[in-house]
Amino acid sequence: MSTFRAVNPHSGEEFGPEFTNASNADVSKTIDSARAPHLSPTDRSALLSNIATAIESDRASIVEIALQESGLPEARLNGELTRTVFQINTFAQLVATGAHLGVKIDKADPNYGMGPRPDIRKQNQPLGTVAIFAASNFPLAFSTAGGDSVSALAAGCAVVLKAHPSHPGTTRAVFNAIQKGIKASGQPQEIFSLVEGNDPHITHWLANHPKITAIGFTGSGPVGKLLVELASKREVPIPVYAEMGSINPVFVTSAAIAERAEALAKGSVDSALLGSGQFCTKPGLFILPASHADAFLSEIEKYLATLSVGPLLNKGIADRYSSAITKLSSLGSIKVYSGTNSGNGLAVTPTFFVGDWKTIASHSELLEEHFGPTTVMAIANESDYESIALTLEGQLTATIQGAESDSLKGLISILSERAGRVVWNGFPTGVSVTAAMQHGGQWPSSSSHTTSVGTDAIYRFMRPVSYQGLSQSNLPEALHDSNPWNVPQQIS
Amino acid sequence: MSTFRAVNPHSGEEFGPEFTNASNADVSKTIDSARAPHLSPTDRSALLSNIATAIESDRASIVEIALQESGLPEARLNGELTRTVFQINTFAQLVATGAHLGVKIDKADPNYGMGPRPDIRKQNQPLGTVAIFAASNFPLAFSTAGGDSVSALAAGCAVVLKAHPSHPGTTRAVFNAIQKGIKASGQPQEIFSLVEGNDPHITHWLANHPKITAIGFTGSGPVGKLLVELASKREVPIPVYAEMGSINPVFVTSAAIAERAEALAKGSVDSALLGSGQFCTKPGLFILPASHADAFLSEIEKYLATLSVGPLLNKGIADRYSSAITKLSSLGSIKVYSGTNSGNGLAVTPTFFVGDWKTIASHSELLEEHFGPTTVMAIANESDYESIALTLEGQLTATIQGAESDSLKGLISILSERAGRVVWNGFPTGVSVTAAMQHGGQWPSSSSHTTSVGTDAIYRFMRPVSYQGLSQSNLPEALHDSNPWNVPQQIS
Repeated sequence: MSTFRAVNPHSGEEFGPEFTNASNADVSKTIDSARAPHLSPTDRSALLSNIATAIESDRASIVEIALQESGLPEARLNGELTRTVFQINTFAQLVATGAHLGVKIDKADPNYGMGPRPDIRKQNQPLGTVAIFAASNFPLAFSTAGGDSVSALAAGCAVVLKAHPSHPGTTRAVFNAIQKGIKASGQPQEIFSLVEGNDPHITHWLANHPKITAIGFTGSGPVGKLLVELASKREVPIPVYAEMGSINPVFVTSAAIAERAEALAKGSVDSALLGSGQFCTKPGLFILPASHADAFLSEIEKYLATLSVGPLLNKGIADRYSSAITKLSSLGSIKVYSGTNSGNGLAVTPTFFVGDWKTIASHSELLEEHFGPTTVMAIANESDYESIALTLEGQLTATIQGAESDSLKGLISILSERAGRVVWNGFPTGVSVTAAMQHGGQWPSSSSHTTSVGTDAIYRFMRPVSYQGLSQSNLPEALHDSNPWNVPQQIS
Repeated sequence: MSTFRAVNPHSGEEFGPEFTNASNADVSKTIDSARAPHLSPTDRSALLSNIATAIESDRASIVEIALQESGLPEARLNGELTRTVFQINTFAQLVATGAHLGVKIDKADPNYGMGPRPDIRKQNQPLGTVAIFAASNFPLAFSTAGGDSVSALAAGCAVVLKAHPSHPGTTRAVFNAIQKGIKASGQPQEIFSLVEGNDPHITHWLANHPKITAIGFTGSGPVGKLLVELASKREVPIPVYAEMGSINPVFVTSAAIAERAEALAKGSVDSALLGSGQFCTKPGLFILPASHADAFLSEIEKYLATLSVGPLLNKGIADRYSSAITKLSSLGSIKVYSGTNSGNGLAVTPTFFVGDWKTIASHSELLEEHFGPTTVMAIANESDYESIALTLEGQLTATIQGAESDSLKGLISILSERAGRVVWNGFPTGVSVTAAMQHGGQWPSSSSHTTSVGTDAIYRFMRPVSYQGLSQSNLPEALHDSNPWNVPQQIS
């Protein structure tokens, strides 16, 4: 029975209680006990609201342990808790309307154009018990009560959460708040359960359990791809909604630099270093116009030299970062710009790599995601931007920093074929939780066309079912003519 | 350069011109030439309408060749052509509204609950060039201009159609009509192209081509699973929408038999024999109540003995049917009921298998889909229906034949977790093309939670893309504030 403890990134030291690695039997028992009660939109909305309220009530204690375990700044963690609670309430509001059930009612029609039509009614139904893998980099908003868990709960699924071992105490604190919210709603605690551990077997046990009907994952490409492979080899394959990150290219036009060089330089550096460069939306590649690159890069070099960042989230990330930086720093014809190292625990040195596009494109490691405070700045002819964009693989986001005078419809169109979200004159970091958000969609940034942020994330955990010819009393509530749940019904 | 010819199922003889197997180079050239122009809802709707009109205009010649190649009755083929044209027009109507673009507009909000929100706008965009594999069993409605092709065209994709070698002349006739419709719309002919052949390599070449972005397939389990596997091993995996069939269980209650034994017996046999038992929705398993089974089965045995069916669609299906019937007929403790053999060409003998549920469940071959005029009738205690339902794998449909007095909510709920469509007092054959239809959804009956019939099939071939902070002139038309395409915009 192996155990593990949390590590404080500021000191690099273990602290706090021992956590026990779940065994295969523990995982099976947890999944077999999971329960997904059939709830009305009102009751499900109340469940979510009560969970949000309980997390908000425990804000101080949650943020306190998250501070120790993540090394992230207090303001960031408070903001992340606010976002987490907001996210849950957003789903509570959606679910209350019943719009997510997607009800369509086609009444019997003896004169239907292709021949008599029976009464057919369709609604979305929850998939069952789903496994959600928490992310390390947002210990609140993409972890225990994060977007994946909450969208699955909102859909009506039971959630089995694989806790991230980087923040086990934070996970427990949020889990306890969730359980308080469930209890306050009079619902069974087995709606939401926890699997703890840093044993890689746990991933396999969860993905292979026959009662798991879908997987939500936010994390690295290799683990996401492993989950996709495991899920496809099951006797009954299941969908894997894996958000695996990307390099989030930013194309900068000469007109943009001419218009706002200083703000643009600072904004670019700040976005790349945000959260110590541990955002899945971190800009990992800037394409700069050769005509205006020199002065712009000199601004960046100077600004970066003044900056340090907080420690990385865990030893694995810090070690991978250091080894990537060592390797990339030794490539020929690539300049290295550095910030300063804050020195303690899992702290690292911000490091940017600069070169011409052709040299960069010849080193595939420079076009991979590297977690931590690093990015790549590639110098190219502006007339080559479209052909460069055509070589890029699937991305979470793609950004253009341009000016009113730029004609960029061709580039925008190419980027929209490669990215889930196209950003103009902003930075990709910062992902609003809203109906129109799309986070994911193109391989290898994600494993499906769905979004993991925003209210549409709920549809990953539901499937449509049609009912033909059923009497009113045998139909699910949302499909009744009397519409007892008062949900939107598209009737024809 | 190998060739093949059509076979007339009535005679079993080859006839008509030689068709050439596409080479790998042919397949690549076709895919590389595919074009998916950016069209307004009005123009795309007109394209679909023009295709429908052209197919209707060529009705006589299309039905004439389909008669020879499929052996299906003329009334059925005329009905199928009507359905095909109706289906295309249904998509034309949907596309004209622009509702399929799913436009959501979240305007910038400095006071948004989780922090300032930028302007974010989302729409569904076509995936690109998709490969559609035509089915043998609906030479019109699920073939060249069938549900998969037409939903992909409606989505805005370019379609590369793998023709089914069972009906090559029918495919050409429909393809020519499609090209007339495209020409009448002033669109490029490369929106829709054809790959012909009976060489199994073609499947691999299509599935592995880097420009193919999705696959639509209606056919057998083994080929569907091969496509899923090929697609998952690509450098960039792509979605496979495979509809692979199922046994479509029908649970019959004692109250239903007491109420309408004769009509129910005839209806059950007719549904199993419809289209010579070559429907993906054929009821392949009836569960009959032990208390009322004897008299009911004797009705069925008598009725079946009077019936013959048309020849099977091709030699492969006829050979597989005959070998399955030989094998199943030799199982112990299973009764065999037979119809009559019409004698010529690819004609076969309708054959039903009858036994108690436990014996049937012990022979997995009896619970597999067998194309052709056969079904299985299992006798069970009515009190075991729920536990039997719990053992069933994923199905396209699940049916209950019951009476008002039955309390079957538990069984309905279990069936809704296993099937895409739950039918009450009807038969699963006959699938209406309508908004509320769900055809597919649970493995192994299909490879995703989507539907391949009805207007929602369009969403298989689109993905959402968000645009953040773009100026009006840089946004796609559907996202403009002025709404030049007049599409539904969900604004918040």
